[in-house]
Amino acid sequence: MRHALILGGKRVRPFLTYSVGAICAAPEQVLDRAAAAIECIHAYSLVHDDLPAMDDDDLRRGQPTCHRAFDEATAILAGDALQTLAFELLSTPQPELRAERQLLMLQVLAYASGSRGMCGGQALDLAATNAQLSEAELEQVHVLKTGALITAAVQLAVLAGSDDAQQYYDDFTDFATWLGLAFQVQDDILDVTSSTETLGKTNGKDVAANKSTYVQLLGLKGAQAKLTQLHQKALQALHRIPYNTQLLENFAEQLLNRDY
Amino acid sequence: MRHALILGGKRVRPFLTYSVGAICAAPEQVLDRAAAAIECIHAYSLVHDDLPAMDDDDLRRGQPTCHRAFDEATAILAGDALQTLAFELLSTPQPELRAERQLLMLQVLAYASGSRGMCGGQALDLAATNAQLSEAELEQVHVLKTGALITAAVQLAVLAGSDDAQQYYDDFTDFATWLGLAFQVQDDILDVTSSTETLGKTNGKDVAANKSTYVQLLGLKGAQAKLTQLHQKALQALHRIPYNTQLLENFAEQLLNRDY
Repeated sequence: MRHALILGGKRVRPFLTYSVGAICAAPEQVLDRAAAAIECIHAYSLVHDDLPAMDDDDLRRGQPTCHRAFDEATAILAGDALQTLAFELLSTPQPELRAERQLLMLQVLAYASGSRGMCGGQALDLAATNAQLSEAELEQVHVLKTGALITAAVQLAVLAGSDDAQQYYDDFTDFATWLGLAFQVQDDILDVTSSTETLGKTNGKDVAANKSTYVQLLGLKGAQAKLTQLHQKALQALHRIPYNTQLLENFAEQLLNRDY
Repeated sequence: MRHALILGGKRVRPFLTYSVGAICAAPEQVLDRAAAAIECIHAYSLVHDDLPAMDDDDLRRGQPTCHRAFDEATAILAGDALQTLAFELLSTPQPELRAERQLLMLQVLAYASGSRGMCGGQALDLAATNAQLSEAELEQVHVLKTGALITAAVQLAVLAGSDDAQQYYDDFTDFATWLGLAFQVQDDILDVTSSTETLGKTNGKDVAANKSTYVQLLGLKGAQAKLTQLHQKALQALHRIPYNTQLLENFAEQLLNRDY
């Protein structure tokens, strides 16, 4: 569990939770638990995705994957227990948070992680190997597989925030949805333009696995145009929120221009 | 998920939730969700335990195991999403239940399922393959691996119950702890005395896998004496509860005399 959770990673989701939470005046202790819970779910999904029966990957975050560093049984169990830990973290009573709000947070996390969220996206993704997806189908896979949890990272932060912030829940959600999709388009671009060393995970993987990607569907230029378009949509959603969201704008800018 | 959850099984845990819930005057809608959540956790753990990297089993509840009926990737994901579904079921707002109580239920479920509960027990069990455990170590494995969830099935029902019932939380917990351990001793006995057909799962498995069992540690007679002793402890805990617990007594009687 430690190997999967602590060794590295970009911490995109926790960053979003903390930044949105600060904007929404959420108590920091609540954000600590929300960010950790989201990262536990993310880490568990990586451990299981990397298993031989799934993507069969040796390298993650610049380190041997969990089943390489230990063994398959340990990786399965570590992933399982990381998922549970997420719900344990978020269900611990917190004096700074009303119980009704906390229940909503748990519901959001469960929905985003399960069969109608991240896990469902992963199942669609596996089913789509060697199949040619349309752009709409590819978007559906990514909205679920990676988008759902990125969106949940933002939604948890809003729910932990002030009563006033709740009225912008949908705008924050839109921001996260477009950012999440843009992030995935960028991932597809990097898979062909960046190196294994820079990425900390095996490059050229999607092509090798015969997976549908935005680059394969739209070409490199088309994917880059799509990225710009999604970035703009994310910014438009932010501009509907009357708080200072400069930090989120900067983050989106940096995230979508990354080479790792 | 359906294959793992719906096809069969003894439904020991849901039965406990409903019976204890009825004794504690818990609303039936709340018990529905609690019982379903517990069974989702149990079903997910079976799907993952049966995987080739774990116990490598072909038969469960008289049916092909999930990875046999489908494939390994599907079984991993179905197990993952069943765990999430448990927390989704239990985090949905319920008008019959105070939010604070519901949060406690979520906490109990998470703790019982995770690294300090069921998952931790499974890890200890794997680590103990080919090792000779003492009786205390074996008890520790079982208290976590199977006992934690059986206990949680009872605890959730008490938490869903009346304010008055809360004062017997520890007595119900003791009942469940002893019953759970007795259940496991009976499992070890059945593994050598019953047939694959009757069990609906492969018999003689523990011996084949060179696992420590109560029968191997205490002999068949010793294991049967242990079973009787644990059964008595469970009944003593019940007798401390001033409600009509006849149904639970009968259930314990039937469960511990089963041949399947």
